[in-house]
Amino acid sequence: MLHHLSTNVGSRLSGSLGAAAAVEWSRQVMQEFGFDSVWLQPVMVPHWVRGQQEIGRVVNSKKMGTLSMNICALGGSVGTGSEGIIGELLEVKSFDELAQLGTKNVQGKIVFFNRPMDPTKINTFTAYGGAVNQRGSGASEAAKYGAMAVIVRSMGSNPEDYPHTGGMSYAPNITKIPAVAISTKHAELLSKLVKEDKDLQFYIETYCETFEDAPSFNVVGEIKGNEHKEEIIVVGGHLDSWDRGQGAHDDGAGCVQSIEVLRLFKTMGYKPKRTIRCVMFMNEENGLRGGLKYAEQAEKKKEKHIAAIESDRGGFVPRGFTVPTDEKAKERVRSWKPMLEPYGLSDFSQEGGGADIGPLAKQGVALLGFLPDSQRYFNYHHTSEDTIDKVDKRELELGSASMAAMVYLIDKYGLK
Amino acid sequence: MLHHLSTNVGSRLSGSLGAAAAVEWSRQVMQEFGFDSVWLQPVMVPHWVRGQQEIGRVVNSKKMGTLSMNICALGGSVGTGSEGIIGELLEVKSFDELAQLGTKNVQGKIVFFNRPMDPTKINTFTAYGGAVNQRGSGASEAAKYGAMAVIVRSMGSNPEDYPHTGGMSYAPNITKIPAVAISTKHAELLSKLVKEDKDLQFYIETYCETFEDAPSFNVVGEIKGNEHKEEIIVVGGHLDSWDRGQGAHDDGAGCVQSIEVLRLFKTMGYKPKRTIRCVMFMNEENGLRGGLKYAEQAEKKKEKHIAAIESDRGGFVPRGFTVPTDEKAKERVRSWKPMLEPYGLSDFSQEGGGADIGPLAKQGVALLGFLPDSQRYFNYHHTSEDTIDKVDKRELELGSASMAAMVYLIDKYGLK
Repeated sequence: MLHHLSTNVGSRLSGSLGAAAAVEWSRQVMQEFGFDSVWLQPVMVPHWVRGQQEIGRVVNSKKMGTLSMNICALGGSVGTGSEGIIGELLEVKSFDELAQLGTKNVQGKIVFFNRPMDPTKINTFTAYGGAVNQRGSGASEAAKYGAMAVIVRSMGSNPEDYPHTGGMSYAPNITKIPAVAISTKHAELLSKLVKEDKDLQFYIETYCETFEDAPSFNVVGEIKGNEHKEEIIVVGGHLDSWDRGQGAHDDGAGCVQSIEVLRLFKTMGYKPKRTIRCVMFMNEENGLRGGLKYAEQAEKKKEKHIAAIESDRGGFVPRGFTVPTDEKAKERVRSWKPMLEPYGLSDFSQEGGGADIGPLAKQGVALLGFLPDSQRYFNYHHTSEDTIDKVDKRELELGSASMAAMVYLIDKYGLK
Repeated sequence: MLHHLSTNVGSRLSGSLGAAAAVEWSRQVMQEFGFDSVWLQPVMVPHWVRGQQEIGRVVNSKKMGTLSMNICALGGSVGTGSEGIIGELLEVKSFDELAQLGTKNVQGKIVFFNRPMDPTKINTFTAYGGAVNQRGSGASEAAKYGAMAVIVRSMGSNPEDYPHTGGMSYAPNITKIPAVAISTKHAELLSKLVKEDKDLQFYIETYCETFEDAPSFNVVGEIKGNEHKEEIIVVGGHLDSWDRGQGAHDDGAGCVQSIEVLRLFKTMGYKPKRTIRCVMFMNEENGLRGGLKYAEQAEKKKEKHIAAIESDRGGFVPRGFTVPTDEKAKERVRSWKPMLEPYGLSDFSQEGGGADIGPLAKQGVALLGFLPDSQRYFNYHHTSEDTIDKVDKRELELGSASMAAMVYLIDKYGLK
């Protein structure tokens, strides 16, 4: 499944042809596996397009003259158009530093956010969390003080040649300025150059655009419960991906693992007590519209979800699960640790589920997340390198098996 | 370090030029890092050479005619020479099955051992342990009943195109017959073909040879203890590798991680209470002569080793340590789990150290092993694919840091 989704469907940003193909592919797959019901849940999604060309270069390095740098537009950014933007660079590490510099230093400049992911954080998601505000809201923070554009150091754990894209958004009533990511290696080099030449200038040319919202779908399949079919356990990932690479780890892995949970139950002839539903959420990357729509519909239809498990941390070797915030449900999940630890599932220390299932929280649904090892995730995340050859088949399958085990336990013993 | 060892030195089977280069490289590296003492410990090692060519093919498949298969000689095997060996195939899954078939069915045949590593074992080393006797002693087991040669299914977790070499030995007073490994994909295909054509013939041509034992060395470096310098803590891996690939995971990773432990202490200015010694053992793969020599010398010199830690399971993400068999030492190590778990080190369930440090056991030395995740190890083990690009820098470094932490704890608190 993941080979097909990665290579035949390929990248699938919301609103793209790839996303449409992914919807139809997953609908067909679930039908072929003979799930009891398979349906599409309509949802309107943002439609951002990168455009054909992205240019980033230093134009006046005393030492190196003109020098190309590997950049890519951040998702949601406005483009520069063919005239491009040229300006002096101002490197900062934080919004505080930017605020202290203020309008007199920032006005007319290109702000270069260069705070790395902290390598001393063992959990790379923690390091990501400590750096990603530069990407998410750096543009508007810089525009407040009159910046012309922003360049953001890629959210990558290692020195790399390729940039990481990812979502950004503009604050209301602030000028929308272009935002691009730069590869971590080029960020290091640029930082060195800007220290040598205080008047260093950078040129950016991008053609990205946001179009009208586009129609799309969450794809849902389920196996009906045998005893309490009105009680639903969701397992899911997000079907959309960024437009570079193949979205193999992010989040093709989580999608096929979720389908695989139901396929395993079917293949084994196992009849769950509750209804087990797999959901391919659309638009996690730049809008979360699928997750919001799913929760809205669940509430409207008065569906009773007892738990939801998301897999959106890559198809790496299983380490555990993130657990529900509700004390009783949390203790119940943790009580299963002795059964799961022999399979390498030993980390139940963190709370929370995942972005797509998050909107179900206010309905009191217990949220869990599949927790694979995090060390290599940010080598590939949102890049051209997120391809099928980076996924180990056995690791991916152990993840599906882990998720199936967790669904089985919740179905059998409940969380209350 | 690992990049250099893998690509500039390359493969380093005992007795080869690569092994000699690896000895000199590690001596120089330890000296450059300014360890208090660095020395070579002489040891004679087996000298087996693969020879220039290895041919394996089905010659009379009714369906496919002549068909090449990816094979390689097992380490220690005799060669066929230029005349080759041709014979009918007899597929078996176990030594029991072979014994039941007996001389009347086995005589004059090529025995094909085709029991896979059990994929349901979560720990791939357990799966390896359940299959590796086919490689280690299959040749003599088959020769007992008059077989001409053996073909052994590669010790690989997955369907692969490339064969896995590895050590084998001959039992005394039994005819030495050629032994080769076949890739797991070709093993599957061969099994199918042999079921279709009962008189299927296979041709093997290999030129491997065993020469006189060759002189080599363990390479040892140490930082002297500040309080109890007579008490030694060893950390080590094996410097030799198989002759295919680069020995990046097996065991270049363990070697550079061990050197790195001492380098980290030096760099931090940390003065250990005990003497910390890193040992690059020679000849783990096909003789264990380095490990045996090291223990023999330690005993002869009346050295007091309080602990030894081996890293020989690849440079993957850390999961824990294997622990000493002595109850008190085991409990002491396990008592540190709360300090180590936040760094992903949660598995302290298995006892034992590693092959090279094993001979120290009878001197009462507490033996531990660094335990990285095992899922991908047998994708690369003993193959042309064990190359530097399969090692993740961050995962490798987390391993060194984990080993340094364990050495620190043992040095600080002892094991008694």
